[in-house]
Amino acid sequence: MTDDNELRSGEVAVPLPSATDAGVYFIGIIHTPWKVRGDCPKRGSLDGPVCSIVVDKRWHQALTDIADHPRIQVLYWMHRSRRDLVLQTPIRTGQTTGSFALRSPVRPNPIASSVVALVGVQDGTLLVRGLDCLDGTPLIDLKPDRKSSLP
Amino acid sequence: MTDDNELRSGEVAVPLPSATDAGVYFIGIIHTPWKVRGDCPKRGSLDGPVCSIVVDKRWHQALTDIADHPRIQVLYWMHRSRRDLVLQTPIRTGQTTGSFALRSPVRPNPIASSVVALVGVQDGTLLVRGLDCLDGTPLIDLKPDRKSSLP
Repeated sequence: MTDDNELRSGEVAVPLPSATDAGVYFIGIIHTPWKVRGDCPKRGSLDGPVCSIVVDKRWHQALTDIADHPRIQVLYWMHRSRRDLVLQTPIRTGQTTGSFALRSPVRPNPIASSVVALVGVQDGTLLVRGLDCLDGTPLIDLKPDRKSSLP
Repeated sequence: MTDDNELRSGEVAVPLPSATDAGVYFIGIIHTPWKVRGDCPKRGSLDGPVCSIVVDKRWHQALTDIADHPRIQVLYWMHRSRRDLVLQTPIRTGQTTGSFALRSPVRPNPIASSVVALVGVQDGTLLVRGLDCLDGTPLIDLKPDRKSSLP
């Protein structure tokens, strides 16, 4: 299931491996105001709307003490993206480049990483600002943000 | 397969779901000097040793232009970690807390995210500084680092 099946100029697809190597659990669901990809902001902003991350009941205890962390790294699965492109031509730039030189959703493993501001936590639901994904996106991980010490 | 099967004081495991929801491709392998978990640094440093990330041939074209990015976000699969703990008691602190309030390898989806300095790229292999993972760790994604605009 993809939003965008047509190759643009310069784009190259490769055959995917015949099998995957490990399995991911969807551990919750992300609710945002954006129902189609074209509506999503290019990049989440702390001035953006409050979104909610609803964690499955099985994992609620894992949220213990998460409210101590004002910035959370959210990993989610971009379930609508094709996975077979090695070269891509973003509409925004028109320049063809490698998938690993882009943060596009289209990549072998469609995992996104965003850092959000935690607004509140209640009953297994996090309220956050800073996301830019589609409503209904599956959650796969939450971690305290580690401010990089890189210069 | 886990390095550490015994529960420590305060730790809580839950039953895992009966099936996974999506599949991950291992797209390469990471080579580091650390052969067992106890040898890994607590956190990678740019002053640390050069490590190599060997990308599978299938995905080589996706590395096009990656050398333009001095900082790369690396996602990898911590294949030796158990996935069923919701409360953990790190040896370092002795304090029991939620898995999502820790960056421990033990989590429902054992995906790690590190930002590294790119030293060089040749023939599908990246040389980088800043990793802290085991030798032989499977690679799942490479992205240009997005310096957070968060305050």
